[in-house]
Amino acid sequence: MTETSSSGRKLHLGILSAAGIAKKNVRGILKNTNGIEVVAVAARSLDKAKAFIKETGIEGKAKAYGSYDELLDDANIHAVYIPLPAGLRPQWVKKAAAKGKHVLGEKPVALTNKETEELISACREAGVQYMDGTMWLHNPRAHYMKEIISNKKLFGEPKSVTTCFYMAADEDFKKNDVRAKKDLDGLGCLGDIGWYCLTVTLFAFNYDAPSQVQAHIGAKFNDEGVPMHCGATLTWADGRQAMFDCGFDQNFTQLANVGGSESFIQWTDFCIPTKEDSCEFSVVGPGGLSDLDTRINQDNEVKKVYLDRPQETRMWEDFAECIYAIQDGKKPDDHWPSISELTSKCVLAVAESIENGCKVVEFKA
Amino acid sequence: MTETSSSGRKLHLGILSAAGIAKKNVRGILKNTNGIEVVAVAARSLDKAKAFIKETGIEGKAKAYGSYDELLDDANIHAVYIPLPAGLRPQWVKKAAAKGKHVLGEKPVALTNKETEELISACREAGVQYMDGTMWLHNPRAHYMKEIISNKKLFGEPKSVTTCFYMAADEDFKKNDVRAKKDLDGLGCLGDIGWYCLTVTLFAFNYDAPSQVQAHIGAKFNDEGVPMHCGATLTWADGRQAMFDCGFDQNFTQLANVGGSESFIQWTDFCIPTKEDSCEFSVVGPGGLSDLDTRINQDNEVKKVYLDRPQETRMWEDFAECIYAIQDGKKPDDHWPSISELTSKCVLAVAESIENGCKVVEFKA
Repeated sequence: MTETSSSGRKLHLGILSAAGIAKKNVRGILKNTNGIEVVAVAARSLDKAKAFIKETGIEGKAKAYGSYDELLDDANIHAVYIPLPAGLRPQWVKKAAAKGKHVLGEKPVALTNKETEELISACREAGVQYMDGTMWLHNPRAHYMKEIISNKKLFGEPKSVTTCFYMAADEDFKKNDVRAKKDLDGLGCLGDIGWYCLTVTLFAFNYDAPSQVQAHIGAKFNDEGVPMHCGATLTWADGRQAMFDCGFDQNFTQLANVGGSESFIQWTDFCIPTKEDSCEFSVVGPGGLSDLDTRINQDNEVKKVYLDRPQETRMWEDFAECIYAIQDGKKPDDHWPSISELTSKCVLAVAESIENGCKVVEFKA
Repeated sequence: MTETSSSGRKLHLGILSAAGIAKKNVRGILKNTNGIEVVAVAARSLDKAKAFIKETGIEGKAKAYGSYDELLDDANIHAVYIPLPAGLRPQWVKKAAAKGKHVLGEKPVALTNKETEELISACREAGVQYMDGTMWLHNPRAHYMKEIISNKKLFGEPKSVTTCFYMAADEDFKKNDVRAKKDLDGLGCLGDIGWYCLTVTLFAFNYDAPSQVQAHIGAKFNDEGVPMHCGATLTWADGRQAMFDCGFDQNFTQLANVGGSESFIQWTDFCIPTKEDSCEFSVVGPGGLSDLDTRINQDNEVKKVYLDRPQETRMWEDFAECIYAIQDGKKPDDHWPSISELTSKCVLAVAESIENGCKVVEFKA
């Protein structure tokens, strides 16, 4: 395994809620090489917290709490993971920040721009690290991609991003999942899998803010009016543009194409890699049609990245790095809250356009 | 080679114009097994026609004409190929039909709905076969795809199509190519590579007409106002939808994803295959996330199709089949003009939406 720099230090982490995604994260944290330990879990009841601790194999290591407030009052805890739904999360992020806890909060950040700004400001003002739960950005593959996209000679000017993310949800999901509930994760597919489409887009475009956002016609909703399928086009002042489509209504699909003037990269498992021990992406170089346009004359290199631990482990290690740096006197790394805020505002601009009959929304960063 | 059914019959073909695309087609025709012979070429000058005949290796087989009318008057000719630009083509298609010649006309069909309807009606009324030059539809790969998409048990309900087609054009192209000239192929990238995005979409959706069309924000134009980059979303009354993006402003890319409720198919060389002797597409079956969402649990089968002759050869053989059937007393195969007309109207609906600030266009079939 690649060594990280905890230098024997420990990060004591508490988890607020026993959500399914938290189980995946505990599994990831258990593989970390950066001193991160889950020391407490809080749920809406003590029994739920205890059951979660047992199920995730951290008995004897983690303390169970029957309320979130109790966990936040535990002075032994440096940082918290908050996977609560977006409708409930902002208040707990703000409370955690007020108690001096660093926060890794699930996505989407919040259901409104006001809440997004408030919770990120609360973390900044408290001097705590904020990071959202977008795991794929911490996968080494993303670093290789960034190198290629940033290489002007190889990639040329970035031009467009196309992404699709679908999953087949059953009727129970469309009625009862938190992503189907207006007051919980009320942005539905947009806040869940659409979020990832937008993270790919913003990553590829160096986190520059778009200038305009327009939802595509044809958005679909469940009975509560929560988006079950939607898409949008975003434009940038310099001519770059992106389109995405997402939905809970078709077979599981992840597709991303980042196009430049000289090359493009393409991959089909952008959010959750097909495998944990390696992942791939294609880099297709300049060129195109052969003589008489009878075939394609273009280098297509499949780049394979070998992984010694899952991308979620990498996320937690990066989060711990930020916190150790703060303990060493540095400021929180503002990259992470900045990109959370930008992504959240893009998601919410799409939601605004959908609500207003696909009107063009002028984006305010 | 697979045998076709010419049974010793000959199709005498004349070509109107010495365009580059005609050279590719002559090469394809020379490989046909269905009795097709290029017997005449007409250009704006006799010298141009002679030079084309020499360059394409059909000296001694094909007669040169210095005007299109002369070729149409040649009673030895059964059918004509008309690769003239869309601004000029309709009048020649109508003239050819009036002379009883079957017509394979390049795409896009025409620059207006009126011209589209008129030229297709002219062919229907004259009882001649009309077909457009969309080669990939004749590639055996398309037939395998159709079988999969039509297999309800395997593919489920068709849901969405995403396509991108880009090519990097230089400044000279953007000023001087026929696809940059308002009065020639004045639909620019939309009529050229956007056409192909829409053929994939309509093919996947069984040539059902969309209900609404909306262009995406961010379309770009050259100095003449011809589209150099654009995209759109189309919706169908039953909830299916499609998005595409195309442009002459980035590295050569062809990407298609056809998604169903149970499977999806994906391929990256939809219009012009990477190779002539084989081509591929991926079929990804039901499923998605494994336990704890840590990896993808889904069959991904790459289907390889071996080709004994290029897809353009197949197109010409299919065209000849239609004509031999007519000679045997059958009616022209209305599938081909029908899909040309539908595709043309979709292209023109996108153009209308672009011209009107991305307004939603109610599609009229």
